[in-house]
Amino acid sequence: MTGIGQSRILKHMLNYRAPLDLMFHALADPARRSMVERLGRGPASVSELAEPLDMTLSAVVQHLQVLETSGLVRSEKTGRVRTCRLEPQALRTTEQWIAARRQSWEARFDRLGEVLAEFLDDVEQEE
Amino acid sequence: MTGIGQSRILKHMLNYRAPLDLMFHALADPARRSMVERLGRGPASVSELAEPLDMTLSAVVQHLQVLETSGLVRSEKTGRVRTCRLEPQALRTTEQWIAARRQSWEARFDRLGEVLAEFLDDVEQEE
Repeated sequence: MTGIGQSRILKHMLNYRAPLDLMFHALADPARRSMVERLGRGPASVSELAEPLDMTLSAVVQHLQVLETSGLVRSEKTGRVRTCRLEPQALRTTEQWIAARRQSWEARFDRLGEVLAEFLDDVEQEE
Repeated sequence: MTGIGQSRILKHMLNYRAPLDLMFHALADPARRSMVERLGRGPASVSELAEPLDMTLSAVVQHLQVLETSGLVRSEKTGRVRTCRLEPQALRTTEQWIAARRQSWEARFDRLGEVLAEFLDDVEQEE
């Protein structure tokens, strides 16, 4: 492999961020969350997304690019209008990652509750 | 109000980031997600959190601070050991924000399905 090939791969690896990194990063901004919220109600054009936001159209386009890179949103251009849609499967990926950690934590407390209930049953039977 | 008071409030507003910004930002890093994953299995000390991570303890402490500032994790020091715990309610906040947008999007398709089913029923009855 040529040195150029290697350096391109290295550059790719350094630029690579796991899907969850990109998705959570995309959701960490109020303007981008407002765009996701709007898209939850149905597909929208870029100017519809920009309407409630107090920023330039080029700033909105940049935010849209972050959302698209993360996979949470996709868009397609028909004529002069770019229509954006949510990708529910990508949203579900982030949701499930969080839910799994929360449920694992909560299951600990359920088990603790069961152990405690058994213990109290034993105490009762001994009395 | 004095100019200093105003500038302090302005500075506070500029530094202020909404809880969801902080929580999603905290989740956008693989080391911090690994810490949340470990804490999902139960409380852990800082060195237990650091163990699987290939980084200095001070880097781990910095990541922990991001998690604590976001509210996703809290910690308390007893003697020389700092014990960290998940805050399931904070996890639930992020989970519910995402779920609401996904469900709103999916409900659109359910409604579309109902309209389509009604239309097909009408066509059938007319035949």
